[in-house]
Amino acid sequence: MEIQQVVGSLVCTNRVPGLDHWHLRLIRNARGKVSVAVDPVGASPGNWVFTASGAAARFATGKAETHTDLTIGGIIDGWDPDG
Amino acid sequence: MEIQQVVGSLVCTNRVPGLDHWHLRLIRNARGKVSVAVDPVGASPGNWVFTASGAAARFATGKAETHTDLTIGGIIDGWDPDG
Amino acid sequence: MEIQQVVGSLVCTNRVPGLDHWHLRLIRNARGKVSVAVDPVGASPGNWVFTASGAAARFATGKAETHTDLTIGGIIDGWDPDG
Amino acid sequence: MEIQQVVGSLVCTNRVPGLDHWHLRLIRNARGKVSVAVDPVGASPGNWVFTASGAAARFATGKAETHTDLTIGGIIDGWDPDG
Amino acid sequence: MEIQQVVGSLVCTNRVPGLDHWHLRLIRNARGKVSVAVDPVGASPGNWVFTASGAAARFATGKAETHTDLTIGGIIDGWDPDG
Repeated sequence: MEIQQVVGSLVCTNRVPGLDHWHLRLIRNARGKVSVAVDPVGASPGNWVFTASGAAARFATGKAETHTDLTIGGIIDGWDPDG
Repeated sequence: MEIQQVVGSLVCTNRVPGLDHWHLRLIRNARGKVSVAVDPVGASPGNWVFTASGAAARFATGKAETHTDLTIGGIIDGWDPDG
Repeated sequence: MEIQQVVGSLVCTNRVPGLDHWHLRLIRNARGKVSVAVDPVGASPGNWVFTASGAAARFATGKAETHTDLTIGGIIDGWDPDG
Repeated sequence: MEIQQVVGSLVCTNRVPGLDHWHLRLIRNARGKVSVAVDPVGASPGNWVFTASGAAARFATGKAETHTDLTIGGIIDGWDPDG
Repeated sequence: MEIQQVVGSLVCTNRVPGLDHWHLRLIRNARGKVSVAVDPVGASPGNWVFTASGAAARFATGKAETHTDLTIGGIIDGWDPDG
């Protein structure tokens, strides 16, 4: 899993049905790359989280057919990015 | 999921049956890399979209055996690539 | 899916049974990286094709247990790599 | 599978149920990239391990629905990173 | 699939049961990155091989639950890395 920081949310009026009502978060990794993840844990901007990709991302939503390849798996307690 | 911009469409007369009649879009990510994605939401050139890869890409077409590893999941409302 | 150019074929006398009799093509992407793909469409050296990875690569062969993680999905009509 | 070194553990009070009680290790690869892996073998900081990703990561926990995309597969005997 | 060269073997006394008795090879790709692969074909150091990742890696062992994400698929006849 990857360590990333939540930087915002994403609004998409037109999207595929398979994403249901899930919140979509904008997250950024250590190299500055921004991605989009489903959030089942309720993370807020500034939180450091870890994300799971692939099939694990779908299982985490409780419905294996969910159209996601990246899901937040947990909020990290007391993470210091510099060390 | 990744944030990408639609830059065009792709014409392939000779292709595998598993892609049916799906529209294929050319998309470009923040680093300039161009990929090909199945489009079930009707995106147009210039639109900013997010894409799902792997099994999620196949589920999004409604048929898990579809021969795609990248599918557009939604059109982003009011995306500003510069921040 | 990725856009790549066919640059040759691969000969492997000693290989796993799960690849059956499939032709293996050498392909090269925009950054010069060479990979090996199963070819169900009959591509020739010089052709520009798009490739699917992961499970989609296996489904494209008509047998989901095929030992491939990259399969040519179609030959692109009139592709100009420079734009 | 990738060769990585264990550099610590991760504490996440708020995490998805699918990770059960698994220990989460911080690991670092040869290029300095830090990731998070489930640890079923009992690795300690400083150990060199190899990790499996994707579905193999889930199977290694004995429960294919586990929310992980990276799992430690074994501790390498006498690994010398410099050759 | 990727083209890689076998550079050695890996000894892991403490490993997950899902890898059974498979030989683990150290392999190196064109950019110098070293990985670990299950070897069902009997490759030797110096051999050029192609590797499959993901689910294809597991199917190649004859047991889809095998804890591997990279498996050698064949030994390449007469490969010249310089072209």
